[in-house]
Amino acid sequence: MPTFAIKPDKPIPVAVLGATGAVGQRFVQLLDGHPWFQPVALAGSERAIGQTYAQACRWLLPTPMPAWAAEMIVVPHDPEAIEARIAFSALPASAAFELEPAFARSGFAVCSNASAFRNAADVPLVLPEVNPDHTSLIETQRRQRGWKGFIVTNPNCTLTGLTIVLKALLDRFGVERLLVVSMQAVSGAGYPGIASLDILGNVIPFIDGEEDKIESEPRKILGSLQEGTIQPANLQISAHANRVPVLDGHLVCLSVQLSQEARLEDVAQALSSFQAPSISRHLPSAPETPIRLMEKPDRPQPRLDLMSGNGMTTVVGRLRPDPLLGWKMAILSHNTIRGAAGASIYNAELLVQQGYIA
Amino acid sequence: MPTFAIKPDKPIPVAVLGATGAVGQRFVQLLDGHPWFQPVALAGSERAIGQTYAQACRWLLPTPMPAWAAEMIVVPHDPEAIEARIAFSALPASAAFELEPAFARSGFAVCSNASAFRNAADVPLVLPEVNPDHTSLIETQRRQRGWKGFIVTNPNCTLTGLTIVLKALLDRFGVERLLVVSMQAVSGAGYPGIASLDILGNVIPFIDGEEDKIESEPRKILGSLQEGTIQPANLQISAHANRVPVLDGHLVCLSVQLSQEARLEDVAQALSSFQAPSISRHLPSAPETPIRLMEKPDRPQPRLDLMSGNGMTTVVGRLRPDPLLGWKMAILSHNTIRGAAGASIYNAELLVQQGYIA
Amino acid sequence: MPTFAIKPDKPIPVAVLGATGAVGQRFVQLLDGHPWFQPVALAGSERAIGQTYAQACRWLLPTPMPAWAAEMIVVPHDPEAIEARIAFSALPASAAFELEPAFARSGFAVCSNASAFRNAADVPLVLPEVNPDHTSLIETQRRQRGWKGFIVTNPNCTLTGLTIVLKALLDRFGVERLLVVSMQAVSGAGYPGIASLDILGNVIPFIDGEEDKIESEPRKILGSLQEGTIQPANLQISAHANRVPVLDGHLVCLSVQLSQEARLEDVAQALSSFQAPSISRHLPSAPETPIRLMEKPDRPQPRLDLMSGNGMTTVVGRLRPDPLLGWKMAILSHNTIRGAAGASIYNAELLVQQGYIA
Amino acid sequence: MPTFAIKPDKPIPVAVLGATGAVGQRFVQLLDGHPWFQPVALAGSERAIGQTYAQACRWLLPTPMPAWAAEMIVVPHDPEAIEARIAFSALPASAAFELEPAFARSGFAVCSNASAFRNAADVPLVLPEVNPDHTSLIETQRRQRGWKGFIVTNPNCTLTGLTIVLKALLDRFGVERLLVVSMQAVSGAGYPGIASLDILGNVIPFIDGEEDKIESEPRKILGSLQEGTIQPANLQISAHANRVPVLDGHLVCLSVQLSQEARLEDVAQALSSFQAPSISRHLPSAPETPIRLMEKPDRPQPRLDLMSGNGMTTVVGRLRPDPLLGWKMAILSHNTIRGAAGASIYNAELLVQQGYIA
Repeated sequence: MPTFAIKPDKPIPVAVLGATGAVGQRFVQLLDGHPWFQPVALAGSERAIGQTYAQACRWLLPTPMPAWAAEMIVVPHDPEAIEARIAFSALPASAAFELEPAFARSGFAVCSNASAFRNAADVPLVLPEVNPDHTSLIETQRRQRGWKGFIVTNPNCTLTGLTIVLKALLDRFGVERLLVVSMQAVSGAGYPGIASLDILGNVIPFIDGEEDKIESEPRKILGSLQEGTIQPANLQISAHANRVPVLDGHLVCLSVQLSQEARLEDVAQALSSFQAPSISRHLPSAPETPIRLMEKPDRPQPRLDLMSGNGMTTVVGRLRPDPLLGWKMAILSHNTIRGAAGASIYNAELLVQQGYIA
Repeated sequence: MPTFAIKPDKPIPVAVLGATGAVGQRFVQLLDGHPWFQPVALAGSERAIGQTYAQACRWLLPTPMPAWAAEMIVVPHDPEAIEARIAFSALPASAAFELEPAFARSGFAVCSNASAFRNAADVPLVLPEVNPDHTSLIETQRRQRGWKGFIVTNPNCTLTGLTIVLKALLDRFGVERLLVVSMQAVSGAGYPGIASLDILGNVIPFIDGEEDKIESEPRKILGSLQEGTIQPANLQISAHANRVPVLDGHLVCLSVQLSQEARLEDVAQALSSFQAPSISRHLPSAPETPIRLMEKPDRPQPRLDLMSGNGMTTVVGRLRPDPLLGWKMAILSHNTIRGAAGASIYNAELLVQQGYIA
Repeated sequence: MPTFAIKPDKPIPVAVLGATGAVGQRFVQLLDGHPWFQPVALAGSERAIGQTYAQACRWLLPTPMPAWAAEMIVVPHDPEAIEARIAFSALPASAAFELEPAFARSGFAVCSNASAFRNAADVPLVLPEVNPDHTSLIETQRRQRGWKGFIVTNPNCTLTGLTIVLKALLDRFGVERLLVVSMQAVSGAGYPGIASLDILGNVIPFIDGEEDKIESEPRKILGSLQEGTIQPANLQISAHANRVPVLDGHLVCLSVQLSQEARLEDVAQALSSFQAPSISRHLPSAPETPIRLMEKPDRPQPRLDLMSGNGMTTVVGRLRPDPLLGWKMAILSHNTIRGAAGASIYNAELLVQQGYIA
Repeated sequence: MPTFAIKPDKPIPVAVLGATGAVGQRFVQLLDGHPWFQPVALAGSERAIGQTYAQACRWLLPTPMPAWAAEMIVVPHDPEAIEARIAFSALPASAAFELEPAFARSGFAVCSNASAFRNAADVPLVLPEVNPDHTSLIETQRRQRGWKGFIVTNPNCTLTGLTIVLKALLDRFGVERLLVVSMQAVSGAGYPGIASLDILGNVIPFIDGEEDKIESEPRKILGSLQEGTIQPANLQISAHANRVPVLDGHLVCLSVQLSQEARLEDVAQALSSFQAPSISRHLPSAPETPIRLMEKPDRPQPRLDLMSGNGMTTVVGRLRPDPLLGWKMAILSHNTIRGAAGASIYNAELLVQQGYIA
């Protein structure tokens, strides 16, 4: 079992698609100083092309825009004109439908945060802590679609932490059913996204399309790969999605029914000792602790716990019995790091490690 | 069946206990211009006694302090020195344990928002829309305790709207089990209550003692009175309680399993056509519509819908099937009006109507 | 001196231009039940035309949409097709430039909240408490432009309360110079307006064009009408404009140098005893007290004091000496009522009273 | 002129007084890994003594509590029992009045963030960028008070950035008069500090005692040391202090009159090229750029610019002419880093460099 990741021989050139948006900015921030990946192109929409990134982008992050990015000229989403190996996609779903296949066809490894292809049968929906083996769908995908490259997706931000927790529970006890209520940050809606008049001092009990994703995507991620197709996990999921006046960090209340009886200390131990599969464990973006279990009764909180493991750790608290389903807990996950840009980058690292990106 | 409430012959003198606190202020606001009740005493803690209410009270409401209240001198919590018929209690639980019995012993009808006696077997826990008959426990209470007066309580703010919804469902379909996730306003914690450093841009997934109340109080309220004792309703309830940066208004996500199959339109109809029992229906604080069912997909929202029915209407939205329990919805209720001061006043009106307060 | 306003014989039909936006909604709310004006047309943009107002409008106010408005069909901004006497304009400046003259030409009394014509030499910029006589510019305007109707404007929301305060000081002591720092609510930017990602837990020290308006408009309003033109008041004004995470209510810190020495009690008295000119004093929208002077050291606050006088009263607090300019104070004014829709309606009432609208 | 600071030979043992409060926590955070200082004692109030710091302290910062701190036992404020050379004081003013002299008497270098002794004639009020020479007051202080150690203070959080800006302007142009309006974060009031009910969606135009500090402290800091006493700078200052719903970061609007005419580019240059005196320039806490001048029209903003220079840089924007006083701008400074704990630590580094702490 390796205890180190095998580094690529030389930096791998990467592009960011949809680089000026909220998630695109996170890609730029997280790629700054990345040990394996070297950003060579920032692609943007019509309006932005030809400007420097500094001019084109309304930078929303509290750390300064990296100097290398500020001076880059924003280029069109043209796979022929971009010389890179990986295309990180922060595109909106509608644009992704068209552009991601074009990049994959041209030979790019498209690591996408968009929802466009998450449900396609031949597109892996991957969390390196959970289902690194699903990347073998790439073969099928290439064969069926005749692409030189491929698309690998990461899940919706809200269910990322949740699915990692489910994996830890599934491996140890089995999971039957779960009910999830999310309280989601405004950054999940991009920029300009939610109007301040709608959310200041308010809660909105609805996020378009979100509940469907929460109820379906974990089943694919936790599914098993059989003869080149994914058999979805047999899980019943019900979700309520809410928007709250928080900048970053999706908090989720989970009630879950396990397949077998368990003691509190066993459930706690299953969570806090959870490890990613060894191939994913030593990658640059891998958090030291995939799941951090907090004991203080009023945690996790977005403001205090969000940056655990540089925003890549899933933070769990309030583990306690549930009179209805057996167990309940609160789960916090950084929606634009672990749930978006960080997820795509972590996936790309996995693909390098697996030899899909040379 | 009466279509009007029978008014008392003359104004009934009332006192507010704990009048300077956040809920006490709501009592003062709601009693201003009340057609039946005339505030004659505002009682406060040591620090406040002897000052005018305007001096003693840091008024937190956006409507001006009523002029009659501003000039009242705050008096001690002394049942012998207060000449009133009803004592509205906005006391904290610890003070209520001691003071409410003293007032009841002296002959006061104590209409209490405190949690101190909600679980006592001989103390009615009443919502006029749900269980007006439970007030007959007063007989038992007086007999057992030898009091001239009595204590009637209203439930915790978070479960008030929820319980009214459950009543509507129970009557029509039966209810088996439910899972509740609350997103509660800071005013529910009183003043000064939640520190701004704790809640600005944050969610706290914990409210001390709240989940226990949500899991137990509805069972008492929805229970049946048999031979002078209450048989709790046979309901399984699981709750997650969260604090969100909202000023007023508790929003609750409910997943519920009914005892029988139902169509969406039937569930909708059961909610929107729900009526309080006739004795409660025409009281001054009774909202015209106990439950308002909204169809817009992103409602109810605290900021927009909180003051429905002057803050006495329970607002329901997002009614839809739940793959796990059958039905889900969002419920909004004003925590310091319908869930606190307004609840006590509505109870007092019921007690007048029933002849317990003459 | 009249102590009552002379009512019009019968309801005056009015239209709202730009009715679906944030200020348009305030017009609809404030016109609901107005004793003199009867809304007969709600005009909207291309997208909204032909729908009911309920369908076309994302209602942002916490009081319900008036039933009469909900059912009205939104009509185009066509002066020929609308049969009304007054056109209340909630149009954005760019649309107002084109549409308001069209309505004025057709004979409408255009009472406009838009900035488009505020600086035109022949267009009155009016606050009924301050300069009701400026409406006589209407004669010049009609003559010069050959219009059957006319345009009367009200000032920018931020300086409305400020200018009323300046009027009270000017009349008594004279005013030389002032420095103004505003902290403005997000509703001032309309809907969707400010993105939540920009303002949650933040302050933005910039509002495009706002400082220019604050530095110029009060000079016109406080100016004197001489031979058909306005001689701007000789005032030096400096402004800093900031956006803060508040829903409604612009708070302004004012430092001001008077033309003569004064005692604190005299300044206080000049403010609290200020009265609108008698012609403006008894109109339906006139607040009983134009300026409310608060003595508590931490007031006024948007959350607590905004609705003074139904949102039409200017609330002043923290009056104290300023070591630099002589006097300082804090001024609160409701930006979408006194500073926008309420201002236009109050102006229309004045025009009725003056006989400009028959 | 040295281009490096002279490091102490070995780590200097330091204590934090009032270590469990909001500012105390910042001290602990900033001392973690400090190259010169080694925390050996965390002192707290009665309630905390004997517990570990992890038990005693409600940690409010989004970075984890340092491991060394978590396990330290909180000790009493007893100078005889603490073996350290520097006492960083995060005490409230009332406790500081009594305890800081006791520590100074015992030989401690007390680097205090408290306001208790800031105005004492023999106590230096120091910003290393501005007046490092004022530390020579220590001689007078020791002589007059017979102390082995001494007290050095840093100014109120709100005026720290302001005073650095004034220094840059004073050196180049002279400064006559200024008007300051602050918009201050809630962390400035400590914990629990401001109640959420008071500040959510609100602005409070009052902070007790703050305006006096803003109007007086800069005059002392910018004063000149003459024969062992400080001649306050001849500046006229007027301040308005406001609390806004922001977690960290005080934003200040400044209008200022310089002693001579200047061009915009000269003022800009004076700010952006400002350097600390050479003795202060290379200390561990010295920001590379004392003043960062931003050109984007809507900056600085607390959310985006607060952590410039690790929270030690003063960020200025919106530099423009002021029709009244000549110049206006917005200034942002981190209130608990540059304005509190970071300021005290920077002062301590200066004192080491100057040889006052050996």
